[in-house]
Amino acid sequence: MVKENADSRVDIDEVLAFAIQLARDAGDLIREGQAGIFKSQSVAQTKANAVDLVTEVDKAVEAFIFGRIRAAYPQHQFIGEETYHGQVISDKPTWIAWSSPIDGTTNFIHGYPMAATSIGLAVGGVPVVGVVYNPFLNMLYSAGAGRGAYLNQTTRLPITGKPRPLADLGHALISVDIGGSRRPSVLSSRLRTFEKLAGEPEFGGKMVHSLRSIGCASLNICQVASGGQDMHWEIGAGICILTEAGGAAFGGKHTALTGEVDRKLIVGRKYLFVRNIAPGPGETGLEVQRQFATQFYDLTDDIEP
Amino acid sequence: MVKENADSRVDIDEVLAFAIQLARDAGDLIREGQAGIFKSQSVAQTKANAVDLVTEVDKAVEAFIFGRIRAAYPQHQFIGEETYHGQVISDKPTWIAWSSPIDGTTNFIHGYPMAATSIGLAVGGVPVVGVVYNPFLNMLYSAGAGRGAYLNQTTRLPITGKPRPLADLGHALISVDIGGSRRPSVLSSRLRTFEKLAGEPEFGGKMVHSLRSIGCASLNICQVASGGQDMHWEIGAGICILTEAGGAAFGGKHTALTGEVDRKLIVGRKYLFVRNIAPGPGETGLEVQRQFATQFYDLTDDIEP
Repeated sequence: MVKENADSRVDIDEVLAFAIQLARDAGDLIREGQAGIFKSQSVAQTKANAVDLVTEVDKAVEAFIFGRIRAAYPQHQFIGEETYHGQVISDKPTWIAWSSPIDGTTNFIHGYPMAATSIGLAVGGVPVVGVVYNPFLNMLYSAGAGRGAYLNQTTRLPITGKPRPLADLGHALISVDIGGSRRPSVLSSRLRTFEKLAGEPEFGGKMVHSLRSIGCASLNICQVASGGQDMHWEIGAGICILTEAGGAAFGGKHTALTGEVDRKLIVGRKYLFVRNIAPGPGETGLEVQRQFATQFYDLTDDIEP
Repeated sequence: MVKENADSRVDIDEVLAFAIQLARDAGDLIREGQAGIFKSQSVAQTKANAVDLVTEVDKAVEAFIFGRIRAAYPQHQFIGEETYHGQVISDKPTWIAWSSPIDGTTNFIHGYPMAATSIGLAVGGVPVVGVVYNPFLNMLYSAGAGRGAYLNQTTRLPITGKPRPLADLGHALISVDIGGSRRPSVLSSRLRTFEKLAGEPEFGGKMVHSLRSIGCASLNICQVASGGQDMHWEIGAGICILTEAGGAAFGGKHTALTGEVDRKLIVGRKYLFVRNIAPGPGETGLEVQRQFATQFYDLTDDIEP
């Protein structure tokens, strides 16, 4: 999928090594920023106050990340959460710091250690390098196209070794989120989905093993890549890590469910992410993943974005 | 509270060091057990199959923990999830491996890295030593009565330094669980509480910052002790870590909400655990914690256990 012309040629290994070091250095800044906020002791007294303090750290980290990328790859494009206004991602090498610089800002404010920085490079609209680093737990996930996905550069994902089968939706461990929009229509629609996922089969439920929620999209994606969660239903970041681990992404109730990464996914649309599942005889892994995505979306309302 | 007689006298420092080493060694067994299960590749094909494999590891770890305790402290009592039949905990030194040997068995089966072993000693019905160890993230929480609570034996809890204030319930990050009982009455009661916690104020909600769910009671308690979560609503383990970090436990909708640890708490009843909160002028921390507990339980149904 990567068009080989002068504009788009990148050395995956070099870019991957660069992004890993950059994520680690940005992680140091994030940890230091949090320590500064906690020292100030004023955090969480008022929401506006806490948000201001985080915004300050956020901006400093973003400037650091983009500054380093610009210096190393002046010819590349950039897209960040702050600078995105609906534009289509071009075919040129594009750095994506989507849920960056800090993914999981609510956690970051509270000192809940599930926050990460995620840095990725897409070429031809397809992520080819992805790094997600949680500086609080010192966990680094990384992947380069065709090179596999790794935890801490040593453990290949999925951590379970070979992908395991998934008997049915009832056997799944799924991460969800209560969401930021708390209007009655949106909230009750989401809770209805939780009820259908968790409820007993005799009352129309799927009785999944359980639901998880850590409030950090990139770390959830990495858990699905690891095989520790079967699915994640939210926005995503670190997609290259998921696809290199054999996972797939499905774009919504009324979409084609191809499992392919498209350009909308990169800019924060809500997806269902499904882990690498060992297929039965005569099936492909993607077919199995698509079946689960279909079953899952059957439980959701049209109202869900 | 510790009665000083020949039966109950324990050297807290010695017991704490013993429990820390024991938890680390048990953690090694848990990690090895999981690797064995993943190698077998048969896990999660059928639920019974997976449960059998976990039960095997669970039993081996439990035998290891109790064997080591028995050898070191032959005069002490024991209470474990498997051996508990409603008996009252005596005043004698009693080792509690309640949610042990593996707390978070669903996570353990799936390879979701939120599982821990928790080991505690109570004297006079009060936990005086507590250790919670997550062998997958190599995070060890420990506390001894009067000695404070620590992460990895170096960072005193709460990690935020001084306890921070909590403006109102809307500013809280709260861990909850979808629960094991999925009957319509229990499940919908729980989801109603989630809706009241998360919903917009103009529709009667408290609009909490967010809800979290990691499916491991002891690690949730340790997050509340750390200050990274404001509250945890579930069963608990590692109570000594919470109390040494200034947290409190509140026993339910129709209880006295004293904030004190009672003997029922130790054996797995559902509580609301509240972090160390900096009080305003003229208040005590416990009064503030109790106000939040009252507000919280006002949102729950009588049906909740």
